[in-house]
Amino acid sequence: MDADIKLDFAKMGGLLPAIVQDSATGEVLMLAFMDEEAWARTVATGEAHFYSRSRRTLWHKGATSGHVQRVKEIYLDCDADAVLLKVEQAGGAACHTGYRSCFYRRRRGDAWEVVGARIFDPKEVYGG
Amino acid sequence: MDADIKLDFAKMGGLLPAIVQDSATGEVLMLAFMDEEAWARTVATGEAHFYSRSRRTLWHKGATSGHVQRVKEIYLDCDADAVLLKVEQAGGAACHTGYRSCFYRRRRGDAWEVVGARIFDPKEVYGG
Repeated sequence: MDADIKLDFAKMGGLLPAIVQDSATGEVLMLAFMDEEAWARTVATGEAHFYSRSRRTLWHKGATSGHVQRVKEIYLDCDADAVLLKVEQAGGAACHTGYRSCFYRRRRGDAWEVVGARIFDPKEVYGG
Repeated sequence: MDADIKLDFAKMGGLLPAIVQDSATGEVLMLAFMDEEAWARTVATGEAHFYSRSRRTLWHKGATSGHVQRVKEIYLDCDADAVLLKVEQAGGAACHTGYRSCFYRRRRGDAWEVVGARIFDPKEVYGG
């Protein structure tokens, strides 16, 4: 047990990449970034929080859509500069486009093929 | 099929985060970064290449250790600013510390607990 590991937010100017994986299926759902506040809120609340680079603010994942991510386990990598969250995904979809995973396109030859499952219609969840 | 999706290397100043997942077990092995050259080499050779931020150079994963990653599938995320590689990990370990996955520590209370499997001794692979 090591209580003293300090997460390395400095390497990316205050941000730490966070991989989100479905705790039941092992499917990788998304990649996002945390600042220190997002990390603290995630640990305190048990729901995934990130830093939105586009909106430049704290982002409680699912606050708008209801598709929160309940954190079951958190893993830290060797350099303490990335984390892996194993989550229970409310609503079954992590991606704002309605797909279960943000990684819904697979490379085939020189092109990308949609292979993911679409769970919801974004217009219905976020408005038209 | 969409052949025209351009990967967004600009968002992180020339780098794209790449999640590496074991294609057989679904275990997340590591997170690294690719520049355009690393991406092109990965696609051309079928083995994972990254950009080493510490060494500031192209990094053919496993070139020193022999622990190359044979790419079975590549996925692209919704914003085209992250990729997911499903790989076959030569030697059974992705991490330079000898663990199967770089994410070998799990959070427990306020501390981190080593839960990963150590596959090799780094001194034997990289020298003392």
